[in-house]
Amino acid sequence: MGQVPFDNKKVTEIIAESGVKSFSTASIREIVRLVNMLEKATGQKYVRMEMGVPGLPAEQAGVDAEIEALKKGVASVYPDIEGLQLLKDETSRFIKLFLNLNISSKGCVPSVGSMMGSMAAFLVANRNDRSKEGSLFLDPGFPVQKSQVKMLGHDYTHFDIFEHRGKKLAPKLESFYATGKVSSLVYSNPNNPTWMCLTEEELKIIGDLSRKYDVIVIEDLAYFGMDFRSDYSKPGLPPFQPSIGRYTDDYILLISSSKVFSYAGQRIGMMAISDHLYERSYPDLLRYYSTDKFGHSVVYGALYGLSAGVAHSVQYGLAAILKEANEGRLRFLDEVREYGEKANIMKRLFTENGFFIAYDTDIDKPVADGFYFTIAYPGMTGAELLGKLLHYGISAITLDITGSQRNDGLRACVSHVYRNQFSDLEERLKCFNRDFPVKNQHKN
Amino acid sequence: MGQVPFDNKKVTEIIAESGVKSFSTASIREIVRLVNMLEKATGQKYVRMEMGVPGLPAEQAGVDAEIEALKKGVASVYPDIEGLQLLKDETSRFIKLFLNLNISSKGCVPSVGSMMGSMAAFLVANRNDRSKEGSLFLDPGFPVQKSQVKMLGHDYTHFDIFEHRGKKLAPKLESFYATGKVSSLVYSNPNNPTWMCLTEEELKIIGDLSRKYDVIVIEDLAYFGMDFRSDYSKPGLPPFQPSIGRYTDDYILLISSSKVFSYAGQRIGMMAISDHLYERSYPDLLRYYSTDKFGHSVVYGALYGLSAGVAHSVQYGLAAILKEANEGRLRFLDEVREYGEKANIMKRLFTENGFFIAYDTDIDKPVADGFYFTIAYPGMTGAELLGKLLHYGISAITLDITGSQRNDGLRACVSHVYRNQFSDLEERLKCFNRDFPVKNQHKN
Repeated sequence: MGQVPFDNKKVTEIIAESGVKSFSTASIREIVRLVNMLEKATGQKYVRMEMGVPGLPAEQAGVDAEIEALKKGVASVYPDIEGLQLLKDETSRFIKLFLNLNISSKGCVPSVGSMMGSMAAFLVANRNDRSKEGSLFLDPGFPVQKSQVKMLGHDYTHFDIFEHRGKKLAPKLESFYATGKVSSLVYSNPNNPTWMCLTEEELKIIGDLSRKYDVIVIEDLAYFGMDFRSDYSKPGLPPFQPSIGRYTDDYILLISSSKVFSYAGQRIGMMAISDHLYERSYPDLLRYYSTDKFGHSVVYGALYGLSAGVAHSVQYGLAAILKEANEGRLRFLDEVREYGEKANIMKRLFTENGFFIAYDTDIDKPVADGFYFTIAYPGMTGAELLGKLLHYGISAITLDITGSQRNDGLRACVSHVYRNQFSDLEERLKCFNRDFPVKNQHKN
Repeated sequence: MGQVPFDNKKVTEIIAESGVKSFSTASIREIVRLVNMLEKATGQKYVRMEMGVPGLPAEQAGVDAEIEALKKGVASVYPDIEGLQLLKDETSRFIKLFLNLNISSKGCVPSVGSMMGSMAAFLVANRNDRSKEGSLFLDPGFPVQKSQVKMLGHDYTHFDIFEHRGKKLAPKLESFYATGKVSSLVYSNPNNPTWMCLTEEELKIIGDLSRKYDVIVIEDLAYFGMDFRSDYSKPGLPPFQPSIGRYTDDYILLISSSKVFSYAGQRIGMMAISDHLYERSYPDLLRYYSTDKFGHSVVYGALYGLSAGVAHSVQYGLAAILKEANEGRLRFLDEVREYGEKANIMKRLFTENGFFIAYDTDIDKPVADGFYFTIAYPGMTGAELLGKLLHYGISAITLDITGSQRNDGLRACVSHVYRNQFSDLEERLKCFNRDFPVKNQHKN
């Protein structure tokens, strides 16, 4: 390992050259580009925590099934817009076995990544009532979903839930719902970027109020089952991944294949629309679609108009993965548990060297170890901290772009930090802590 | 072959049972479903001309490249949102070799089918100027593009070009442009459903007026090169596929892989944004995107928000196909020429039996033989004709849903009619003509 900090002059020059004007507004993509430049200029490998991308190989069952389907000739045949029946059936079964919810195959439809799933959801859920205005986001969150709403010309509101956990969630949520302007509620569970996990009590509050104010809940399960404090890995056996599906009637689950099956490259997610919502009529949908039915508008309106379906071989791939998981042959959560184990070690390295966890608790207990965690350093804003860490060979993104109300945090993703880099990480953090001594170590 | 017409009572019952209320408004999908039911009930194979889907196997070079990419592990890796560099480069080269246009690799970006290409184009092109209202469609056309515009809450206008060909196009087009409300012009060339092909003279009119009124042209090349009256198949040699790219600065080409490479199942098309448009600034874009640059808004705004890219293996597949075509090893137009040859025979069978071609000419010469043709029968509306043909084992869709101003035509697609069905088709048409005699045979 070279000297730490790296050549300060060179790092400063590259940052200036990169065109990144502010670390608090730079997108993930801009930071990635900057770190690529820094690695090249310094000749040093960074501890890269800025990207939220899988670091494991794709599930082999999916790859094999895709190859088989391609050999059988599916590439020339338009996929059914409702989705491959096998995939719909295995998704419905997966939801029963791992969430203990009943959603018919009909409502389980593939989308080109969960990105398209949320887009299709907004295209219909935010147009079902002309008197409403758009989505409410439980923040911090994934910034692109807000961009989607904005791109569609809808409105949105948001709040940071950290100070409104548990019973305190009810009055806060109701203050937004009571305006009568909220069409849909959006959150991810586990939460990106903080890894907070909503409890059954909180989900019940959300469900009850959403029913009362007739709000559609869009639950993003991008990190399905990855709260490793509980073992959600056994098909058909409790405990089950907590879900809004137990507490309200009108909801959409977004199940991504990207992280949990390491299938990000093939762009497939499943939208699971509750049976009640699928069949519901909203006369105001006729302004945009040929029918007032919610499910029909999602499939034959939004999804058809967005892409006319998901690549045919890819649907066979995901169907095969889900079938293996459903039948207990694929212990998919065991494979991604590595992320949690790395997070546990990395959080220790940070906190031993003056850092503290920014979003540290789930109400009254420490947050779980998973794909992401948040860090901060006493007396520094997130932007300052990132600017300094880049000189020490460490990269991340600030929480500012995630809708967080705090300005001192960074999001760290564990997936592209490898165990053989832990000694580098520790050494660099020690140097950082030496160079920026903390007077009163933050208690964590 | 069974008796023709089929069991009239049974066919009538099935039509009633199918829920199709009117043949003039039924979607393609509803007709497909109805014909599936009719084939089952009658035990007879229909001459199916309702679906616009490829009837040939996918290009093998694409399938092979996808399998290789999957084996190398691309399934776990997010594709670059700008697209695989190899695919971008081969697309730029394809455009040079087959259209004789210069579009940089940067502006060549993959979309999840050309369906997503038009959606992304509308999301940006129709938002670049707050004083404009939406798209103008040259009809007849592909109905889903109008649904996309409607879904986005934009406005659109349209006219049937058949009566406004050649020099007559200029005043008609200008009457729309002069309102100042047109953001973008949309047409497909060759035209779906009529197979009319715009001439260089017409493209020049469109280009000149679009420049004058600052309208972005969206040229849908879903049936690239499939006007078989000219041989567009030799890379780098004239004649070249006619294109708006020779006559204006701000345009987007949509190049689909579905028909010309029989790759419909994998959902990939290429958007090619002219260099001038890619770099252009439109301050009103800042209402929806983080930048005022057109190209950046399409890629990092619209396409990123719609799906975060195209399935990784599929990009390798299309890149390989284009490379083979560019290097002259894949004579892709020879492979789809079969469609034109079948159209020639089928059109003769129809016209010998009292039918006439609804959209019969390109200004002063007969339309080409290709993927689609239009038919009509003296004294019948399109809806009546389709209702009757279903009793004779023949299916198609009416022109009513395509924006045609005539109400007597049907669109017929040749792809799923096989040569061994031609004798059935001839026999059925003879019976039809016998049962509905034409007093004064329409001259064609």
